[in-house]
Amino acid sequence: MSQDQNSISRRKFLSGAGTALAGTTAAFIGHGLFFAPQSSAAVNEEFEWPWPYVKLDPEKVRIKGHDGYYDGDCSQGALYAIVSELQEKIGKPYTCLPVQIMGFGGGGVAGWCTLCGALNGACAAISLTSEDFYKLSSELVAWYCETPFPSEKSNELAKNKAFKINKSTKVLEQTVSKSPLCHVSVCKWCKENGCGSGCSDRSERCARMVGDVAAKTVEILNAYHSGSFQAQYSESDLAHSCRACHSKDKSYEVGGWSRGKMDCSGCHIKGESSMVDPHHPDN
Amino acid sequence: MSQDQNSISRRKFLSGAGTALAGTTAAFIGHGLFFAPQSSAAVNEEFEWPWPYVKLDPEKVRIKGHDGYYDGDCSQGALYAIVSELQEKIGKPYTCLPVQIMGFGGGGVAGWCTLCGALNGACAAISLTSEDFYKLSSELVAWYCETPFPSEKSNELAKNKAFKINKSTKVLEQTVSKSPLCHVSVCKWCKENGCGSGCSDRSERCARMVGDVAAKTVEILNAYHSGSFQAQYSESDLAHSCRACHSKDKSYEVGGWSRGKMDCSGCHIKGESSMVDPHHPDN
Repeated sequence: MSQDQNSISRRKFLSGAGTALAGTTAAFIGHGLFFAPQSSAAVNEEFEWPWPYVKLDPEKVRIKGHDGYYDGDCSQGALYAIVSELQEKIGKPYTCLPVQIMGFGGGGVAGWCTLCGALNGACAAISLTSEDFYKLSSELVAWYCETPFPSEKSNELAKNKAFKINKSTKVLEQTVSKSPLCHVSVCKWCKENGCGSGCSDRSERCARMVGDVAAKTVEILNAYHSGSFQAQYSESDLAHSCRACHSKDKSYEVGGWSRGKMDCSGCHIKGESSMVDPHHPDN
Repeated sequence: MSQDQNSISRRKFLSGAGTALAGTTAAFIGHGLFFAPQSSAAVNEEFEWPWPYVKLDPEKVRIKGHDGYYDGDCSQGALYAIVSELQEKIGKPYTCLPVQIMGFGGGGVAGWCTLCGALNGACAAISLTSEDFYKLSSELVAWYCETPFPSEKSNELAKNKAFKINKSTKVLEQTVSKSPLCHVSVCKWCKENGCGSGCSDRSERCARMVGDVAAKTVEILNAYHSGSFQAQYSESDLAHSCRACHSKDKSYEVGGWSRGKMDCSGCHIKGESSMVDPHHPDN
């Protein structure tokens, strides 16, 4: 059977038998290839997903995240911090993954300043290692929005020249982004620190923040895989009056055309944003 | 040599010799393992990065992207559309990659509605296959902001029941997001269509859009790898007066605390947004 024929028959098998197989964790077909039958989108064949995880040291990962930023930018740096540890401790399949897959996430996707790259890269590590990626990623994002960056631990490491790459020993001022967006996170910090976003202090702030996000991710994964994970930054902690109407669970008429978990007030102010209906009850 | 010692010596080698090796594409050390020496963050060892690419059929990928949405949500669906084709045509290393690595990106990262998941998953495919991921990803994002979704092609496929998964034959209204953010992209479409964001029409709109984004990504990659890529949606097309001051290349004093390529007016209106200095010259 050619590779193409084999692929086609495997797809047929997947689409036809996906429901029957739901609930099993792996199946063995063809010439020794594994796939994850809970998803017909999962045609990867060499290794069963999710990939294995072992407990990692958040402090080692914090340092790697910081240093990884200077090598591959924020998103790749965060993924590298976690995956390189798993490459060392487990080997395959992690040695098959190029961490450059998240290179695009740098600067909130190629400088567009959308999603914080540290979150993007770290969430990829979560998705690689857990079926509960939705819950764990959401926790990480919610934590990020409420956390002062850079952390005191990262500032201390810099002060003591404890990173491998030590570009600054300054204790940097902390800011809380209240947003998972690179644009908001960086701009708030720069305004608080009187710093242009292209300056070296801002780079060092983001490097320390990548380490902090990677370390927190490992804390979440360690807890999850040892059965002790509990969400601490749930959606309900961030919810506010807007979502009583503006939620994907509501009808169009009451405002259900909107959705999301970001803090609305970051962009929508007193009904003045372009996205707010001029007949909003608050106007 | 233990695996740990081997890893340490490899890291030392990388950090010490990275500069000297810059420009080469691969090196061979230790027991038959490859790595990408242009980046000390790249400790992956089994396959050289970027991974090989062959010309793909955008129309086949468009259908796979649509159907992949219903299986693994937007972000995983976009990555699946491209990677599953490369799995069929090339095999390894693509068969080593679980497309679930981008599962977290669904709903703009676990429902947070930040970066559009289709962009997130598609950009991962770009980063996997090209060293120029920054330029190509930026082009894809810029195109997305200016493109009406769902495309006429996707509407036509739905009308003709030409997808594998045909949930609706409706020709859906198109909207242009002017933003790479899920929240903006979805809300604009919902308001235009009188549709709650949790309704099946909105899901079908996003499914078609995932197909459209995956197809465009393949067009970009086909052009790039055949040497004919030219950016058509450059930053300068989107730039406006704000960025003359508010850019990472400017000093703090003239507004260089800001950065990014998103359309400022999506959130900042007439100086009334919380992020705008009350002493802004326009006030």
